Amino acid sequence: MFIIHGSSRENGNTEQLTKMITEGISVSEVQLRTKNIRPINDQRHAELGFQPVDDDYEQISKEMLEHNTIIFSTPLYWYGMSGLMKNFIDRWSQSLRDKELNFAEKMKTKKMYVVIVGGDNPSLKALPLILQFKHIFEFVGASFEGYIIGKANSPGDIRLDSNTIQQANALNLKLKNEN
Amino acid sequence: MFIIHGSSRENGNTEQLTKMITEGISVSEVQLRTKNIRPINDQRHAELGFQPVDDDYEQISKEMLEHNTIIFSTPLYWYGMSGLMKNFIDRWSQSLRDKELNFAEKMKTKKMYVVIVGGDNPSLKALPLILQFKHIFEFVGASFEGYIIGKANSPGDIRLDSNTIQQANALNLKLKNEN
Amino acid sequence: MFIIHGSSRENGNTEQLTKMITEGISVSEVQLRTKNIRPINDQRHAELGFQPVDDDYEQISKEMLEHNTIIFSTPLYWYGMSGLMKNFIDRWSQSLRDKELNFAEKMKTKKMYVVIVGGDNPSLKALPLILQFKHIFEFVGASFEGYIIGKANSPGDIRLDSNTIQQANALNLKLKNEN
Amino acid sequence: MFIIHGSSRENGNTEQLTKMITEGISVSEVQLRTKNIRPINDQRHAELGFQPVDDDYEQISKEMLEHNTIIFSTPLYWYGMSGLMKNFIDRWSQSLRDKELNFAEKMKTKKMYVVIVGGDNPSLKALPLILQFKHIFEFVGASFEGYIIGKANSPGDIRLDSNTIQQANALNLKLKNEN
Repeated sequence: MFIIHGSSRENGNTEQLTKMITEGISVSEVQLRTKNIRPINDQRHAELGFQPVDDDYEQISKEMLEHNTIIFSTPLYWYGMSGLMKNFIDRWSQSLRDKELNFAEKMKTKKMYVVIVGGDNPSLKALPLILQFKHIFEFVGASFEGYIIGKANSPGDIRLDSNTIQQANALNLKLKNEN
Repeated sequence: MFIIHGSSRENGNTEQLTKMITEGISVSEVQLRTKNIRPINDQRHAELGFQPVDDDYEQISKEMLEHNTIIFSTPLYWYGMSGLMKNFIDRWSQSLRDKELNFAEKMKTKKMYVVIVGGDNPSLKALPLILQFKHIFEFVGASFEGYIIGKANSPGDIRLDSNTIQQANALNLKLKNEN
Repeated sequence: MFIIHGSSRENGNTEQLTKMITEGISVSEVQLRTKNIRPINDQRHAELGFQPVDDDYEQISKEMLEHNTIIFSTPLYWYGMSGLMKNFIDRWSQSLRDKELNFAEKMKTKKMYVVIVGGDNPSLKALPLILQFKHIFEFVGASFEGYIIGKANSPGDIRLDSNTIQQANALNLKLKNEN
Repeated sequence: MFIIHGSSRENGNTEQLTKMITEGISVSEVQLRTKNIRPINDQRHAELGFQPVDDDYEQISKEMLEHNTIIFSTPLYWYGMSGLMKNFIDRWSQSLRDKELNFAEKMKTKKMYVVIVGGDNPSLKALPLILQFKHIFEFVGASFEGYIIGKANSPGDIRLDSNTIQQANALNLKLKNEN
């Protein structure tokens, strides 16, 4: 299982929630805030195509491809995923053109989960983001297995969102059984 | 009028469409791909609050605040705005805490437009992004005046999307009259 | 607490789920399929305004207004609420013009819940319906307190959706405490 | 071309807009308000399956199946299609089980258009309905060719929505050429 953390804050509410979901499960994970990931430079139509970029994207994406289950864990920033995570996903356009990667082939088999924590009525206002992830996963042919939307404002508040914690525990059980 | 270009490609379809919309109108604009904008570092809950960041964000955001009408022009990357643009908007959280900026006060009065060009059925698959912008503009109290969603794949294809061009021309007339 | 059942089937999955949510709570309820509710005849602009309709709508809507908490319980028919329920809500336009009812005034104070059961990936494909209810409740100024989306195809299948049942039980506890 | 009118008002704004779209084109059409269409009685799981219903549904649906292009024309009632139209679509579940109809087979080839007129910010608040139609058409395998969302409150106001009228005229040209 591979976790992509999109939060800019260490051990924030979203990370805490994701930890509950993956407790007792062996995971690989990346905190995007600790990495250097350049925005996509759309060279799909450039004569020479995409040029290599000297940053951490390629290594992270390759690690991602090795796992069957991927968790996208992001706070709800301005009613979307964080820019950190969006830049990571934008770069998939480059990976899709990399003939050696077999990116498209490998993504098709993956099981995707989304974990979001927001402060402003997220059970309603995160729904456009869920719909966006639906399109993303459909495009690469991956299976959107589930999502959890938590509510928290101040640090640690996610522990007060009992309904979400219950869902996290249930998902934890499910993932343990699958693993 | 201020235009925020989120595309990574110079003079791409989205920019061409936005040019049609603003033809003959005096505009200020920024190409985010030519600027250095760091992802947000969420220090809302840090003891010292947000710390200054040495990049181009502050200058751009201040310029944005001087205009009454703002156009968000972005290609549809993975069914959302580009990471370049998302990082710019994520940083508004910092501006909201800057007491000297009067960010919240000034944003309330603004008229917002969104211009999107996508290749994969954008008239349906860009709708989650429109809903996200709706939430963004509601949060800052700005008025969501309108949006145009164009369809294009290869460079220059937007000129074949006659329905969208017609809408662009109509919006151009409206904006000229308002200006 | 008032429950509006929109299903056409007696004791179907949606009703079973709603029963779990309200177990041990004294409720008033209406099965719309057993009632005669005419589609709205939009006479907002007619000279004489809305004319009385000889059906069950008025009695049901008056009963609804007497309760603080309302549960909209509907199967996901064609990715929306049932036509039975939609006709009921469409008629609110008439109630809003009835000066003696104080419909608008009374709806503002209500707490709304939505219960949906669908067979085709409802956790994603019922989201447009959730967004529609959001607009409906915002229009009347009521509070959208929560929703539960269950998955079931054959009769009784809802009992296999353990994640949803867990949420139903949690909501049951919450409602009991509030009552 | 077949037009399904869901409005409860004769010659209302939605009908006027749809007339502009189909001017000069030979169409068959049905005003659902003049027909008797019962809500679905979900007998998918009943021993004997769906029983015949004595109303106008079957005749209308058969007429619909004879056309390649179908326009769903509905005012935005409570942020959804009218209950009149929803009851018509709900009944498709019955048609899908009717072995002689070949409903599924025939629907797959159809080109669908949606015309909506609303009064309360429809360009944003009708989007959940567009997403619902997307799911509906995907389910039957039909092609969602396009939609137009107009804004009008009082009778005749649609004629003031110049942007929408322009789109209507453009669609009219396109449909004329296809026909």
